[in-house]
Amino acid sequence: MTKLTDVARVAGVSATTVSRVINNYGSLSEKTKQKVYAAMRELNYQPNSLARSLQGKQTKLIGVIFSGVSNPFFGEMVEELENQLFSKGYRVILCNAADDKAKERDYLRMLMANQVDGIIAGAHNLGIEEYHQVGLPIISFDRYLSDNIPIVSSDNYRGGQAAGEALLAARVQHPVIITGQQQPNSPTNQRLSGYQAVLSAKDVALDQWTLAFGMSPTLKMMRIRQLLTTHQPDGIFCTDDLTALLVLQAAKQLNIAVPQALKVIGYDGTRFIQAYHPELTTIMQPITDIVTLMVELLLQRIADPDCQLETSYTLPIKVITGTSTAAIS
Amino acid sequence: MTKLTDVARVAGVSATTVSRVINNYGSLSEKTKQKVYAAMRELNYQPNSLARSLQGKQTKLIGVIFSGVSNPFFGEMVEELENQLFSKGYRVILCNAADDKAKERDYLRMLMANQVDGIIAGAHNLGIEEYHQVGLPIISFDRYLSDNIPIVSSDNYRGGQAAGEALLAARVQHPVIITGQQQPNSPTNQRLSGYQAVLSAKDVALDQWTLAFGMSPTLKMMRIRQLLTTHQPDGIFCTDDLTALLVLQAAKQLNIAVPQALKVIGYDGTRFIQAYHPELTTIMQPITDIVTLMVELLLQRIADPDCQLETSYTLPIKVITGTSTAAIS
Repeated sequence: MTKLTDVARVAGVSATTVSRVINNYGSLSEKTKQKVYAAMRELNYQPNSLARSLQGKQTKLIGVIFSGVSNPFFGEMVEELENQLFSKGYRVILCNAADDKAKERDYLRMLMANQVDGIIAGAHNLGIEEYHQVGLPIISFDRYLSDNIPIVSSDNYRGGQAAGEALLAARVQHPVIITGQQQPNSPTNQRLSGYQAVLSAKDVALDQWTLAFGMSPTLKMMRIRQLLTTHQPDGIFCTDDLTALLVLQAAKQLNIAVPQALKVIGYDGTRFIQAYHPELTTIMQPITDIVTLMVELLLQRIADPDCQLETSYTLPIKVITGTSTAAIS
Repeated sequence: MTKLTDVARVAGVSATTVSRVINNYGSLSEKTKQKVYAAMRELNYQPNSLARSLQGKQTKLIGVIFSGVSNPFFGEMVEELENQLFSKGYRVILCNAADDKAKERDYLRMLMANQVDGIIAGAHNLGIEEYHQVGLPIISFDRYLSDNIPIVSSDNYRGGQAAGEALLAARVQHPVIITGQQQPNSPTNQRLSGYQAVLSAKDVALDQWTLAFGMSPTLKMMRIRQLLTTHQPDGIFCTDDLTALLVLQAAKQLNIAVPQALKVIGYDGTRFIQAYHPELTTIMQPITDIVTLMVELLLQRIADPDCQLETSYTLPIKVITGTSTAAIS
């Protein structure tokens, strides 16, 4: 078995330095870190997790990697994850990866290195090579990470269809879809595909606007006002609710009446949106069911690392109908 | 030094059972747990934390106890805590205590028992005796926990004053304050005191409604509609923004024009509220500064457990003025 001292030898540094890199402790140059990471990759070194699994020792810690908890959707999901994992005797290490690939990678290394029994991953930074190498049970929310990491999603294709159907049922003729940046292999792209299929079946043209997930609300707002002024759509499907709130706000500022002149539909349907914005029609992802399934699958993998799981699990969505898509006769 | 086996002897159980209780592992009866906890208290047993501090070993883990991250205020605070602690080489164990005293107590025991260097505590369950006994560095957000635990707050008294001043400046004559349940020693009570002082200086009567922090938005909404219908206030100060959003929603449903017939002011002023509800006048707590100070104090205590810190630290608030309190001429 590869040892810490082997990594030190290959990297040309001391064992203490390797330990510090793994534990992200003390001040170290980026160059030194890169040398150690390269050696770890070369030797496929997975420090304590392997040692631990040989000893059969569990830490009862789960790493939970999301883009951040200030977004109510992820806030509710992480809160539910914490509740369910706590009731199973596990604690959560919270890892906010923001839109920061380097931070997600650092976290992944740390989690591999020293202390978790498994990982729930739901951040937006796709294509991180380390996910292919992690020697720990991982379950992914709504993102492709690696062939052997199961994905739990809600039915994004059906959600997109339902949004398109709601707009067409409200007699919209010039709808626009506002999406985040499309990433290869991202299940959320299916929202666009489902929506598009419904529109093309009725010969309605696709008009798509892209606003990056990480763009500030102020900039998004500026772009949305521009869109409303120049394109004059009579319906908008936003693939997340927060963007839909900005559309409602912009429409109010520009004296565009919702739903009379403009229908608006969002996506996610958190408890927050249902309580504080009941006027917004939205597609609800079943957060509690998603979390229950992710926790169940993760605990199966922890109990038996070789257990066979499906590649992906898809849960049904629900349409929550508010007044923002009401047909006006 | 007290050992695990001493706890086992006093509790009349095996050492394995004590270990399981400490690590919240396996199925154990409530009676067994209580026996072990009683023995731990009697012997003032602080398992690994003491052993660890004798060895000078740090885990680089910080326990962060809040009521939950689905509330945007706590979501933003926990996200900022995670960011700042990560940049200092620490990871966060997320502990959602909800309104659940027993869960907060369990977490505290687990954190004491096995693996954190310190705790940031911001949950709402006051008077937990265990906080008096914890042998770890703790910093509290906005709550009295124990004489030797520093409290970091923003200026709740000044915030309450500013809210009262804003309502009176908008020529409100029959204002109502909606607060959560008042707890003894809670710094947030100062919001009420500051507000009350401003009103009584102008001989305006105090009218106070209480809606418990944990009440569901649906029930809160029902109570607020009742209040608006029966009391017909011309101004409302809510001591949190989410309740203020419900007031705006209820006013809209009841055709009460804001700000013409009703001025509304909230409290907290998160990035979320500023971006998605710019119409709401609110008192902003400086989340980033609060977190910076809490992290700085915690790291001081970790570096030197005997360092002298103040009992409380108060940071200034800011008034964010929206249209919801605009004076109509």
